[in-house]
Amino acid sequence: MYTREQLTDLVNRAVSSLSFPEEAVKLFEPVIYVLGAGGKRLRPVIALMACNLFSDRIDDAVKPVAGLEIFHNFTLVHDDIMDQANVRRNSPTVHKKWSPNQAILSGDVMAFMANECLLEAPAPIAADVFRTFNKAAVEVCIGQQLDMDFERSLVISGEDYLRMIELKTAVLLGASCRIGAILGGADKKNADLLYEFGRNLGIAFQIQDDLLDLYGDEKLFGKAHGGDIVSNKKTFLYVKALELASGTQSRRLQELFSGVESDPAGKVKAVKELFDQMGIRQLTLEAANHYISSSFSFLDRVGVRKDRMEELIRFAESLIGREH
Amino acid sequence: MYTREQLTDLVNRAVSSLSFPEEAVKLFEPVIYVLGAGGKRLRPVIALMACNLFSDRIDDAVKPVAGLEIFHNFTLVHDDIMDQANVRRNSPTVHKKWSPNQAILSGDVMAFMANECLLEAPAPIAADVFRTFNKAAVEVCIGQQLDMDFERSLVISGEDYLRMIELKTAVLLGASCRIGAILGGADKKNADLLYEFGRNLGIAFQIQDDLLDLYGDEKLFGKAHGGDIVSNKKTFLYVKALELASGTQSRRLQELFSGVESDPAGKVKAVKELFDQMGIRQLTLEAANHYISSSFSFLDRVGVRKDRMEELIRFAESLIGREH
Repeated sequence: MYTREQLTDLVNRAVSSLSFPEEAVKLFEPVIYVLGAGGKRLRPVIALMACNLFSDRIDDAVKPVAGLEIFHNFTLVHDDIMDQANVRRNSPTVHKKWSPNQAILSGDVMAFMANECLLEAPAPIAADVFRTFNKAAVEVCIGQQLDMDFERSLVISGEDYLRMIELKTAVLLGASCRIGAILGGADKKNADLLYEFGRNLGIAFQIQDDLLDLYGDEKLFGKAHGGDIVSNKKTFLYVKALELASGTQSRRLQELFSGVESDPAGKVKAVKELFDQMGIRQLTLEAANHYISSSFSFLDRVGVRKDRMEELIRFAESLIGREH
Repeated sequence: MYTREQLTDLVNRAVSSLSFPEEAVKLFEPVIYVLGAGGKRLRPVIALMACNLFSDRIDDAVKPVAGLEIFHNFTLVHDDIMDQANVRRNSPTVHKKWSPNQAILSGDVMAFMANECLLEAPAPIAADVFRTFNKAAVEVCIGQQLDMDFERSLVISGEDYLRMIELKTAVLLGASCRIGAILGGADKKNADLLYEFGRNLGIAFQIQDDLLDLYGDEKLFGKAHGGDIVSNKKTFLYVKALELASGTQSRRLQELFSGVESDPAGKVKAVKELFDQMGIRQLTLEAANHYISSSFSFLDRVGVRKDRMEELIRFAESLIGREH
């Protein structure tokens, strides 16, 4: 079995050996910049782990799953324009370093480069691989739309929020697992189970991400507590709190989440107090655990010897912060 | 054989019967708006004509070639943001009617909707269809990059300009013809000949378009003479003139093409006089005719009875203004 490190290395090599047309150097400079900026390569690595469950030969899967990384980075480049984000992975975003126009066009070409990689799946399974990918790609766009709509909504239900993160984040993780499984020779039943494993894991991952922003260990996660609160981000914690809040609490919460606060630490403290009154930390943990249990119960049903699953389980646990 | 009108009708029906997810209505409103705004459906129609050369059954080709129309409209939505164009087909552009962010995201989802249609090509030829499409899609991005680069360049050669329009416009027409041929059951040789037919036709079409803006019959083409000159657009006429100009003529031309002119009619007249001194009209006509001849010589070599080619020839002639 391949380790996470070996697979990350294989993906990094595939990404850095991509060839670019020599015309229009300016088009590909941002592509090289973004793909070279690192990142954890989660999607292709989990895909290769899913592949490795079913097959010891994963070489032919590396190029197709590199397409998942390119697609993911395409969404980051365009999302960063839409969100007016200035920094990504400690470097200026493409639209800041070049221009919004350049970020649109270089993003576009990445979408077609992703297609190109995915098309390298072996002929008999190429259609299944590509359909799985493309369905997720459409859903990721829908997820980003819901996210933009939410920014302008006053009230979002927990259900709406979960659907948004499912589409924006989780379906691509599900598709990555399914694509890897198909590339490893899995039958439809096992491929579908791995999709559900990845989708549920993705939802849990996103809920945990919201939780750790406020309650995580600062040293481990490298972020100051409450960054989401300071930037008025509507997280699972916030929407859950709004669902449970009394009239007074609800008004206070909405008041705190509107406009820019001159005292960020005070704002975080005030919101945290409200959250604590409502038991939001515990509720969020329970929600994450619900999706983690679902995720692993789908994995349990995959028809593969348990010892083959060790790397994938370890990887999944690291994603949801369980290794600490 | 199907007529142009019948094929346009088939394409329009395929486009208007596309189904959209019910979530995220805002994402698809601009898609419906753009695809419903008409247009000549050139790419899918020429694809179906190429298909019809080889097969009397074209039904299975309609949905895949509708993907070419969706892709083309995706490029228009994003190009209009980059070019800051306010109007397209007599209606506000998507980024004007909604917002740049909405135009980015709704454009993105169109790219994946195009994939989805093209994926409906029958299994044995799907990979060939999709590769032909995706290669063109990457090239169209490169063409748009060259176009943006040219906007900021002082001097562009005729050769550079031809390469730009080849990538930005002609390769998609070539790919459309090739995809149609494959869907009709053509062998590789005939499919490649149809690609070259479409590519050369596309270059001729774009050169003619530049020519007609200044020298066309205003009643027939519905545009005022010289709109490209008024907006300082670097057309084939302009780059060819710069190639041939003396030092004085060159300076005058560059002077006229910089900044906004308070007297548009006077500017058009002055540029036209310079063009006339250099015989630009005739040179441009010769260049267009060169590509038209190439185009038809590739078509001549396609192994299909001449009477089956009549509709396609008529269509091609209409594109390059020969029917007038």
